[in-house]
Amino acid sequence: MLNAYYVDMLGHKSVIRELSEYATERKRAVGEENVYDFSLGNPSVPAPDSFNEACIRLMKEEDSISLHGYSPSVGIYKVRKQVAESLERRFGIPYGPEHIFPTAGAAGAIAHALRAVTTPGDEVLVFAPYFPEYGPYVTGTGAKLVIAPARMEDFQLNLEAAEELISERTAAVLINSPNNPSGVVYTGETLEKLAGLLTRKSAEYGHEIFLVADEPYREIAFDNTPVPYTAKYYKNTLTCYSFSKSLSIPGERIGYVAVHPEAEGADILIQVFAQISRGIGHNCPSSLIMRAMGETVDDTSDLAVYERNMNLLYDCFTSLGFTVPRPGGTFYIMPKALEEDSVAFCRKALKYDLVFVPADGFGAPGYFRIAYCVTTEMVERAIPVIERFVREEYGK
Amino acid sequence: MLNAYYVDMLGHKSVIRELSEYATERKRAVGEENVYDFSLGNPSVPAPDSFNEACIRLMKEEDSISLHGYSPSVGIYKVRKQVAESLERRFGIPYGPEHIFPTAGAAGAIAHALRAVTTPGDEVLVFAPYFPEYGPYVTGTGAKLVIAPARMEDFQLNLEAAEELISERTAAVLINSPNNPSGVVYTGETLEKLAGLLTRKSAEYGHEIFLVADEPYREIAFDNTPVPYTAKYYKNTLTCYSFSKSLSIPGERIGYVAVHPEAEGADILIQVFAQISRGIGHNCPSSLIMRAMGETVDDTSDLAVYERNMNLLYDCFTSLGFTVPRPGGTFYIMPKALEEDSVAFCRKALKYDLVFVPADGFGAPGYFRIAYCVTTEMVERAIPVIERFVREEYGK
Repeated sequence: MLNAYYVDMLGHKSVIRELSEYATERKRAVGEENVYDFSLGNPSVPAPDSFNEACIRLMKEEDSISLHGYSPSVGIYKVRKQVAESLERRFGIPYGPEHIFPTAGAAGAIAHALRAVTTPGDEVLVFAPYFPEYGPYVTGTGAKLVIAPARMEDFQLNLEAAEELISERTAAVLINSPNNPSGVVYTGETLEKLAGLLTRKSAEYGHEIFLVADEPYREIAFDNTPVPYTAKYYKNTLTCYSFSKSLSIPGERIGYVAVHPEAEGADILIQVFAQISRGIGHNCPSSLIMRAMGETVDDTSDLAVYERNMNLLYDCFTSLGFTVPRPGGTFYIMPKALEEDSVAFCRKALKYDLVFVPADGFGAPGYFRIAYCVTTEMVERAIPVIERFVREEYGK
Repeated sequence: MLNAYYVDMLGHKSVIRELSEYATERKRAVGEENVYDFSLGNPSVPAPDSFNEACIRLMKEEDSISLHGYSPSVGIYKVRKQVAESLERRFGIPYGPEHIFPTAGAAGAIAHALRAVTTPGDEVLVFAPYFPEYGPYVTGTGAKLVIAPARMEDFQLNLEAAEELISERTAAVLINSPNNPSGVVYTGETLEKLAGLLTRKSAEYGHEIFLVADEPYREIAFDNTPVPYTAKYYKNTLTCYSFSKSLSIPGERIGYVAVHPEAEGADILIQVFAQISRGIGHNCPSSLIMRAMGETVDDTSDLAVYERNMNLLYDCFTSLGFTVPRPGGTFYIMPKALEEDSVAFCRKALKYDLVFVPADGFGAPGYFRIAYCVTTEMVERAIPVIERFVREEYGK
């Protein structure tokens, strides 16, 4: 018999996917260039040449058996060292290879981090707006997802709500900055307050509450303002990273968990992750991709396009009178819809072949998400269409 | 707090890993060439040139964004078609792309297959001797591992035991042929009887019992005798494959689940697998590796070395009077130790720098496993050492 839980999931297709499928159909009907598809977070710039070059060099120079052979269950030592040194250089935290665990992207990183610090029945707190996949990520571990409602005035962390929601059963808090869908970067002040709260609650309940920091957009930061590094504020932090966005290689499934050297269990967590891998059938990312990532750990694609696109869209929406938090990073922007029902708003936009995603599913009702990982040329062509849509539908 | 279940697993290091670590230390002390390390199942032949060539060609010819971009959650269509066509060509089952789900090796394949057809609390039956990782693979899904004891006379499936052990709670049966650790290939007659048993029990309990066929060694077959294709005997078969051995790329983590087109739920199982991926943080194997696998789906490394090594070792052990089932495939052979306690036997062998693995942990007490994925030259040098060990320790 098929597992009813998973079969049931088939009935709940994500809104993003439905919209994206609709967009694909429309493209077939009216031509790719006539559909303004802002639905999907798929990087739109090529990987840096250095990444492919590293892959090719490894295949030409390395012995096949050692290059393509099994990796140790905790990942390849040299790569873990390359990541640790890069993090120490950039953020001043003395990571060693013993704190780095390579994974299949941030999804794999979060799967390991959450399982390591929760026990089925525990609670994991997330802050709206949040990436909807956190639902299956958390429930897949057997833990319970608890959602702090969004702080609508600036989409920073709603710590007042967290104060109420953190309980004895809270094992971990999962945050995402720069944030998908809002684009907002949590400030140092916000993270400091969060750290204070978690320290106090950990003492109150007699167990450490872990902070799982999901930071795949860390390298896409705007206005020359770097993204505060969460682990600097709270030692029980497991940093989950993906190279999907920085290197534009989401299909290659490569990322890591970095365990703060002073975290509870820092001496064994990497080994615990390796045990978790056995149970979920994920034994290390591809060895070739892992090695090439190690060689290019500090490189990035040309990410400037995202800031250009953000500025164009931010100016467009503000000049049209939208309420819109200014993104500090990512390739998302999240304006407030012009009517309470953002689904109705997005449906009207579809008539203009503008594909926006209602942010209700992200925990920001009344808002919508635009993924601007597209060409600047496409953004420029979309702006007059957006203006026409707003004028014709909302008289602005 | 760390998850106690996983932390506890740290205390139970696998015997194979301990022995392999001992061997590594010994190699440092006495020189690599003086340790006969038969502990690990890591392929010893290079990948076929065509695999690296396919990777390099893809990187040179394909657009970066489409090559390295997200794969669909069910895997890349073209690759699924390549696999389906290869399977149909070879085994005459009309697979379509809609029955193929690419995974991170056989471990990933089994993780998906088992979760799809079991519900926590169900039972999964395996047959000794079996790959010890089946323990965490099965218990990681929340199901219970039930072990049919080995049929010691020929190490075929112990169907008499299965008859007793299959119950209303049995959701799936997991078999592995060619078998790790015995090297035995299940005959067509055995598989036919198994199919009959499962059909009868399915009817008796009113639900289909799935057969999960773990077949990573399918391409390593000896004596010009092909390995019977399990799915031909039973329609509710989920075939789990890995290219780790056929292409000698275990570090690249690439394999698939093939759903028999007439299996219960064949029309939705691939979609169910995609839902499972969300919960375990495994979203498709590397896109580059997946594509290169598709291009080389029918290629293999030069696997002849394994048969040469098997013949040398089989002749050596039989001439020394060992009881030893003749392997039909894999790169393992499993002789019976010369004393009841195979751990003591393997410990004595260590004095001669012969690293064998007791098969007790595989469910074949009194036997030991030799992984001969090593050079033939090493096997040839080991034989006189084996002879001396047996003469000096057992007077043979």
